[in-house]
Amino acid sequence: MSNHVIVEITVVPLGTGATSLSSYVAGVEKVLEKYKNIKTMLTPMSTILEGDLEEILAAAREMHEAPFLKGAKRVSTRINIDDRRDKAITMEGKMEAVKAKL
Amino acid sequence: MSNHVIVEITVVPLGTGATSLSSYVAGVEKVLEKYKNIKTMLTPMSTILEGDLEEILAAAREMHEAPFLKGAKRVSTRINIDDRRDKAITMEGKMEAVKAKL
Amino acid sequence: MSNHVIVEITVVPLGTGATSLSSYVAGVEKVLEKYKNIKTMLTPMSTILEGDLEEILAAAREMHEAPFLKGAKRVSTRINIDDRRDKAITMEGKMEAVKAKL
Amino acid sequence: MSNHVIVEITVVPLGTGATSLSSYVAGVEKVLEKYKNIKTMLTPMSTILEGDLEEILAAAREMHEAPFLKGAKRVSTRINIDDRRDKAITMEGKMEAVKAKL
Repeated sequence: MSNHVIVEITVVPLGTGATSLSSYVAGVEKVLEKYKNIKTMLTPMSTILEGDLEEILAAAREMHEAPFLKGAKRVSTRINIDDRRDKAITMEGKMEAVKAKL
Repeated sequence: MSNHVIVEITVVPLGTGATSLSSYVAGVEKVLEKYKNIKTMLTPMSTILEGDLEEILAAAREMHEAPFLKGAKRVSTRINIDDRRDKAITMEGKMEAVKAKL
Repeated sequence: MSNHVIVEITVVPLGTGATSLSSYVAGVEKVLEKYKNIKTMLTPMSTILEGDLEEILAAAREMHEAPFLKGAKRVSTRINIDDRRDKAITMEGKMEAVKAKL
Repeated sequence: MSNHVIVEITVVPLGTGATSLSSYVAGVEKVLEKYKNIKTMLTPMSTILEGDLEEILAAAREMHEAPFLKGAKRVSTRINIDDRRDKAITMEGKMEAVKAKL
């Protein structure tokens, strides 16, 4: 049984000594290359994932680890899960439903 | 003095009796039409705003109010502010910096 | 190898038709009874957990499921992980460090 | 007309070069001393405020500014608002409602 969800993830290293974090973020994104079944969208504030909940949680766990592999000593990760089970939700579908009402 | 920031906002009505929330989200989005100086991006999980911090906080306050005007009795709003002052940040610039490192 | 972290979790059912959510929250809390190695703190906005990261993520997965077992059709879960590896962090320690500086 | 809400705030400086952030957090807390009408609770992951929404948003704006006054160049602030209008909510009341159902 698969459980299709949309999840937003932001992984931020703390105390790095430089205000620019893009190289860390790139490392976090690279984790996703091997998750072929997860649809991803990069936004200016997060990465949004669509797919099976268990697979996404495994990816999130690995994304959280990425900055440590680049030398970070403290990482703050926030995860928002949107899980709707009466109807399939997709990233496209959610945005179209809003736009249709504007 | 203006303070240019990127802010992510998600406004969710609780206890509405229907799992679909897109009509509420559309009401939240409509608030932004009059804020001509704020750049906006709709994502499947949030609205991202770029512009002056004080103006965005005023918009956020009004976005939070929108579902009540449609009958909601309880609203949960989350706001994430990214405020960098050693260098101007833009939504485009943040995403390009990550992509350049991928 | 265990990785000691502090994690904040809020699990909210959407579209339930009633603004009061405390019975759902109680169901989410009950999940934690069997996780004997996780230290928990209930706050007015979340549950804060301290312990091994993998064990906490397993508990978070189960907490997210709890409202569905009570009939919810859509659940929004937010998770914030604070993972510091240069020094052990505890809930008590973090609060004392702040209070000592006030 | 006052609008009584509960708001959770976490203010985090980025790129500070040290993993310990407690002196910054203490600076953020000090802002609250002058807001006599706002009830506050420090948790290991945030500060929770109870009071009038407009007053809390003014305090949040000032809390967000505090790390810059201590030299931070980038600040990430997250704010979660719980605003229920069919019934007054308090920090105590929310926790008691959950505990009564456990």
